Amino acid sequence: MSLTVYRKAHFNAAHRLFREDWSDEKNKEVFGKCSNPNYHGHNYELIVGLTGKVDPETGYLIDLKILKNVIKDEVEDPFDHKNLNKEVPEFKNLNPTLENIAIVIWNKLRARLDSKFGISVELYETPRNFVIYNGES
Amino acid sequence: MSLTVYRKAHFNAAHRLFREDWSDEKNKEVFGKCSNPNYHGHNYELIVGLTGKVDPETGYLIDLKILKNVIKDEVEDPFDHKNLNKEVPEFKNLNPTLENIAIVIWNKLRARLDSKFGISVELYETPRNFVIYNGES
Amino acid sequence: MSLTVYRKAHFNAAHRLFREDWSDEKNKEVFGKCSNPNYHGHNYELIVGLTGKVDPETGYLIDLKILKNVIKDEVEDPFDHKNLNKEVPEFKNLNPTLENIAIVIWNKLRARLDSKFGISVELYETPRNFVIYNGES
Amino acid sequence: MSLTVYRKAHFNAAHRLFREDWSDEKNKEVFGKCSNPNYHGHNYELIVGLTGKVDPETGYLIDLKILKNVIKDEVEDPFDHKNLNKEVPEFKNLNPTLENIAIVIWNKLRARLDSKFGISVELYETPRNFVIYNGES
Amino acid sequence: MSLTVYRKAHFNAAHRLFREDWSDEKNKEVFGKCSNPNYHGHNYELIVGLTGKVDPETGYLIDLKILKNVIKDEVEDPFDHKNLNKEVPEFKNLNPTLENIAIVIWNKLRARLDSKFGISVELYETPRNFVIYNGES
Amino acid sequence: MSLTVYRKAHFNAAHRLFREDWSDEKNKEVFGKCSNPNYHGHNYELIVGLTGKVDPETGYLIDLKILKNVIKDEVEDPFDHKNLNKEVPEFKNLNPTLENIAIVIWNKLRARLDSKFGISVELYETPRNFVIYNGES
Repeated sequence: MSLTVYRKAHFNAAHRLFREDWSDEKNKEVFGKCSNPNYHGHNYELIVGLTGKVDPETGYLIDLKILKNVIKDEVEDPFDHKNLNKEVPEFKNLNPTLENIAIVIWNKLRARLDSKFGISVELYETPRNFVIYNGES
Repeated sequence: MSLTVYRKAHFNAAHRLFREDWSDEKNKEVFGKCSNPNYHGHNYELIVGLTGKVDPETGYLIDLKILKNVIKDEVEDPFDHKNLNKEVPEFKNLNPTLENIAIVIWNKLRARLDSKFGISVELYETPRNFVIYNGES
Repeated sequence: MSLTVYRKAHFNAAHRLFREDWSDEKNKEVFGKCSNPNYHGHNYELIVGLTGKVDPETGYLIDLKILKNVIKDEVEDPFDHKNLNKEVPEFKNLNPTLENIAIVIWNKLRARLDSKFGISVELYETPRNFVIYNGES
Repeated sequence: MSLTVYRKAHFNAAHRLFREDWSDEKNKEVFGKCSNPNYHGHNYELIVGLTGKVDPETGYLIDLKILKNVIKDEVEDPFDHKNLNKEVPEFKNLNPTLENIAIVIWNKLRARLDSKFGISVELYETPRNFVIYNGES
Repeated sequence: MSLTVYRKAHFNAAHRLFREDWSDEKNKEVFGKCSNPNYHGHNYELIVGLTGKVDPETGYLIDLKILKNVIKDEVEDPFDHKNLNKEVPEFKNLNPTLENIAIVIWNKLRARLDSKFGISVELYETPRNFVIYNGES
Repeated sequence: MSLTVYRKAHFNAAHRLFREDWSDEKNKEVFGKCSNPNYHGHNYELIVGLTGKVDPETGYLIDLKILKNVIKDEVEDPFDHKNLNKEVPEFKNLNPTLENIAIVIWNKLRARLDSKFGISVELYETPRNFVIYNGES
């Protein structure tokens, strides 16, 4: 009897799409206005899902306070009100596209959460653009 | 050619997280303020999905009025404006966590809806906490 | 140059519509299923507005952290996960209708916030029913 | 490493549920007020998902501007502010139910998008009724 | 002590922007694709506000069931799943723009609701376009 | 007969709260993490309202395409995907708080729109923090 529990969170950040090993022209050609050297920013909305079995004793899959705190430690505290390119180590050499941010978040959560749970990460960059990543191989 | 049709519904209810066979201290330790003996409450938002084949004659998977009425009979009428712990028989001996409420709803719908349809239940307790259950074994 | 700043908050609570000086029949006749003696509940969404002049030095009407903390002290801490009828003193002898809850919140905020600000309280009981109160005489 | 990128779009249209080979009575009996011969209409909200591998060079699954333009060409331009029954060739002999509209959209997108991507179509006819179709056989 | 109570409702309808006394060219020039002779349609979201004094006996401004039923009688039943131009008498000789629909709704509600209440009508034609009308002279 | 028409728009931008004539310590003390020298960012949601009389000939207060284009010229094009502090001239010597951004937008729109219309600007910095400014003296 498998079920998924979801928790929403959010963070605000600046970023630019950019590869250091490309010329400015190439960055602009591929990433357009998202490559603005002065940065732009977003309100990122995050929905984390944990899939597993409900504990028959508590009726909980997991105490959502635990999940909330892990999201705070791993995502909100290090990402919120930050410049992703300059201040978040994972993006030192990784282009902070929506796709890559979701994968980084998934990996950080995977390292902290019990391996008995499947994890899904849904991340909105704007109300119209979002991704879902669940680490499937 | 498989497709899923969804219908949203909602109900308002009071509940508390609580196991009768535990002491008040243990209930409070495990369930925190959700265990308040005077109850608290929520606007539950429910999204029911039915998966199956589209009828080539009507272009419908199911007439949504049928699904709407089944949700009304099985969920809205018995749960809305109720105290889940005291007035809904399914929670007489079952802790009304978000997980357990979703499973109860799924079981009630499964008993009423044609077995040719797969069923998914998405249930929001707050705008930030929700579950999805689709009865997979 | 007058402007209004808004901050959203929320709390979950149980309540029933009920006057102690009325018979059960009268309560049921007037308040219907909202008068259920076992209580029901809601996710209340609250939007507080402060109207005033922008401080030319900071560019703030008010530091929103201050407003956020006042709302936490006066509304979220005393109302969240509570039974409004039994646990919130303001409703000891006051029927906790949506209208009365909004007026109580407005009065509590008025007593805490600088009199140079106008205050508005928008309160949602469900996504379809809400009130706005701004204390105008 | 598989991931899904989503893009929202919308269009407004008139339609009626109707089979030309049925009598008016039969159409009315089966489709109720949705069969009104004078048409009614909706704001259709569309969410298209593409599933595939992230390009390690760009960090993109696909440049969302490409997906946005394909949706504009295949869905928004031919469907927006149109009468689906009378002006959209795909519904000349196909009842424009929510299910059939989603399948038509999926087929049009499938013909335009690289076969390395899986496609999902989520379509809202009202805030309470929607379908998801991903072409699984 | 004045307060406003709001109730949301909705209806789906087809319409076209059109003046019979103008040529087709002029209609198309002024109203663009909104003038399509085959009609298009919308999900109209409606928020009705009533302003007045709270009854100290009940704690209600008005029993929202009354307001809900008046909206059903005056707006939802006559407008839902209809062609506004052809089936709603008020638009026989009145162009069904968002502005005019809101004014027609306000007038219909004004005729039914107690004159002690102020009335406001907020009407969404799409999630991005809406009007507010409160009958002020 | 006065009515207000609203149009929603949005832009994404980076900014920091900062006064050049203050020390870094003072900026940090007053503006907290919003003063991060590396910037952070938001999805700004904007709702512009125009108040006036409905033209009896067209049934329009204004053709919304005109308003949409003015918002594009005055707000979306100069602000979207920009660093407000470094790239938007109005904030060269003005702290880009939510309040000041709303006032700048109002002034830009006032200069472009017919003086017969009243203007209101509602601006969301996050889903929980927003302002309304309508230029009242």
